[in-house]
Amino acid sequence: MKTYNELLKEYEEYKALGLKLDMTRGKPAKAQLDMMEGLLGALSTNEDCLSDGVDCRNYGIVDGIPAAKRIFSDILGVPAEKIIVGGNSSLNLMFDAVARAMLRGVAEGEKPWSKYDKISFLCPVPGYDRHFAICEYFGINMINVPLTAEGPDMDVVEALVSEDETIKGMWCVPKYANPTGITYSAETLRRFASLCPKAKDFRVFWDNAYVVHDLTDTPDELPDILSLAAEHGNEDMFYEFTSTSKISFPGAGLAAIASSENNIKRIVKDMSYQTIGHDKLNQLRHVKLFPNKEAITEHMKKHAALIKPKFDAVLNAFAEEGIDKLQGVSYTRPNGGYFISLDLPNGCAKRLVALAKDAGLALTAAGATFPYGKDIKDSNLRIAPTFPCLEDIEKAAKVLCACIKLVVAEKAEM
Amino acid sequence: MKTYNELLKEYEEYKALGLKLDMTRGKPAKAQLDMMEGLLGALSTNEDCLSDGVDCRNYGIVDGIPAAKRIFSDILGVPAEKIIVGGNSSLNLMFDAVARAMLRGVAEGEKPWSKYDKISFLCPVPGYDRHFAICEYFGINMINVPLTAEGPDMDVVEALVSEDETIKGMWCVPKYANPTGITYSAETLRRFASLCPKAKDFRVFWDNAYVVHDLTDTPDELPDILSLAAEHGNEDMFYEFTSTSKISFPGAGLAAIASSENNIKRIVKDMSYQTIGHDKLNQLRHVKLFPNKEAITEHMKKHAALIKPKFDAVLNAFAEEGIDKLQGVSYTRPNGGYFISLDLPNGCAKRLVALAKDAGLALTAAGATFPYGKDIKDSNLRIAPTFPCLEDIEKAAKVLCACIKLVVAEKAEM
Repeated sequence: MKTYNELLKEYEEYKALGLKLDMTRGKPAKAQLDMMEGLLGALSTNEDCLSDGVDCRNYGIVDGIPAAKRIFSDILGVPAEKIIVGGNSSLNLMFDAVARAMLRGVAEGEKPWSKYDKISFLCPVPGYDRHFAICEYFGINMINVPLTAEGPDMDVVEALVSEDETIKGMWCVPKYANPTGITYSAETLRRFASLCPKAKDFRVFWDNAYVVHDLTDTPDELPDILSLAAEHGNEDMFYEFTSTSKISFPGAGLAAIASSENNIKRIVKDMSYQTIGHDKLNQLRHVKLFPNKEAITEHMKKHAALIKPKFDAVLNAFAEEGIDKLQGVSYTRPNGGYFISLDLPNGCAKRLVALAKDAGLALTAAGATFPYGKDIKDSNLRIAPTFPCLEDIEKAAKVLCACIKLVVAEKAEM
Repeated sequence: MKTYNELLKEYEEYKALGLKLDMTRGKPAKAQLDMMEGLLGALSTNEDCLSDGVDCRNYGIVDGIPAAKRIFSDILGVPAEKIIVGGNSSLNLMFDAVARAMLRGVAEGEKPWSKYDKISFLCPVPGYDRHFAICEYFGINMINVPLTAEGPDMDVVEALVSEDETIKGMWCVPKYANPTGITYSAETLRRFASLCPKAKDFRVFWDNAYVVHDLTDTPDELPDILSLAAEHGNEDMFYEFTSTSKISFPGAGLAAIASSENNIKRIVKDMSYQTIGHDKLNQLRHVKLFPNKEAITEHMKKHAALIKPKFDAVLNAFAEEGIDKLQGVSYTRPNGGYFISLDLPNGCAKRLVALAKDAGLALTAAGATFPYGKDIKDSNLRIAPTFPCLEDIEKAAKVLCACIKLVVAEKAEM
């Protein structure tokens, strides 16, 4: 075992290299985007713009063209009539869903959330910073719920929603959760589907962002929450979201919302005040590229072939450098998604980000995985290995290991 | 002059033809869309997707790529730094602007509109149904203001906004207004720019939808409202909107908002909670097709060459059939835009729509040009001659004339 001074020297050597590496966000790499070149020219003639008799260049069809609903039906395993295809951003669909609930309530006759003195959302932690930011924007109180290896701690969830009427919503990333990479278990889903919330207008925001983002041949399985919920008369309780942002293009993909027929009907009605229709030509481009589920599966295998080695580079470095044996350090080994979650001894996360920054490695800010940016234990970090090239990830992993060992040694010195 | 029975016979003859014609909405015709075929294939290789060093396929740039801001700077005559390029729908930008004001107020420290017991918008009438629908959606009280040939009656506007603190907003279509086709005069603009509203968070929603949609060689001129307002310290009072929906594709164009730097800064901040960015590839496609203002001007001349004959077909039929000489009947002869506004004797509008429908001609519903769909005089109709082909418009114009003459004769009989 190396001494503190040896570890400091090792760190200083990395620092002297003047590296410039970025593991801050879950962005697809250029090589992934390059594989979608066919999408760019998928439509080239006026005749190409027809879909089921609809001229996709002109106004109309607020809920998306039928052929594009089929893509999301394939991805989510939800019937097309329970799907709306929106613009390019599932975050936008989530934000708008909260905005509608705030201003108009979630259903006919339900009070708008903005008319309550206080409303709250359950937030599994660690979680996705942009979910939490939506709550901050709307002034929604956030209540942390521990995320276990099986999903949110359902004892806590059940106890809270059955007692606290201010709890109107909950954020979930049920498959390859951001950032831990875990997938909710069958038992967790069963308990979600049969929840009895005190607030009748309670809604689960089921962000299925990584539904087809498997990295191995033994992917995690996630049953369809809408049909499970329907068995308990709870189908209206779930808004499911997904997008092709990490399938086709992050900046120019398609997003969708799936829910009960009641909810979809209501959302379409509300959405009709907001827009005459989303971009149907981009919907049609995706239809041409992904004519069936197999096309998506094949495409995602190519993504996995690029991403898996990057995850392995980090995990192998962690193993080689003995990070897994350090006191108080643990990390996830996900089967899919975009992140590795790293837990450090208490009080070490901010210090690690600072050390890494000085050594030329940008990491997601400490605290970002918690509501209000507040990780009271200052221990969790999100590692995003997808965007840089493999060579850079290998370098970054070594720097990261040196920083982790140093920060743990510093803690022991204190 | 024909008798009632002769007019009825004429109408019945049209009815017997079993026509199926549609003049309900201001939609571009297929021939207009066909001229934009180049947009479809504007990007075809991975390398095409770079703009000023930005990979437009990936995440980011919530306010739009600089090159796309330039397009709207050209169109609106507003500096690029006062512009946000959004998704495909200016209606969506307007809806979201009202939603933000409702939930968060229009500026730091301003009370959210939803926290007031009552808020009101001024609505020039006749006007655009989708504007009014946004107010209905948010429960905003609408106050009618007469639209004159110079724009909204500014005596009324000034009196109301200076006295009534519940008035928080106003809808305007300043050039080729929907539906009358009139353009606000320089004097009207001066009075707008120097308004002194009692509500400090009053905002004018300046929907400049038809800014480059001239039909003649002597187009109407509309000075830039933002710079005029700035002279009076009122620049924050205006949200200007436009889109390429009727330049490129209605379903897959670009929309933009222009405003003061204060407002833009605030909107960008708020928008960052809602989305990581709009579709930058579609922005870049438009950049390739419209490299400069001349390209847009040339393109719009081709549109005019298709649309002008359709307006002429209606106006010539009106003149030939003596519609302009009928008691209580008048109509507009716009220099641009998408509509002709038709005023009938009181109590005749609904009846005309019903007569036309029975003769196979679908018109925009009577009342649609008024808040809550209520035209108390039941006299105004919006004629939309752009979508059908010229031959159909010529037929439709004849049917319309027969219906107008019959309805006026019916009224005289009563």
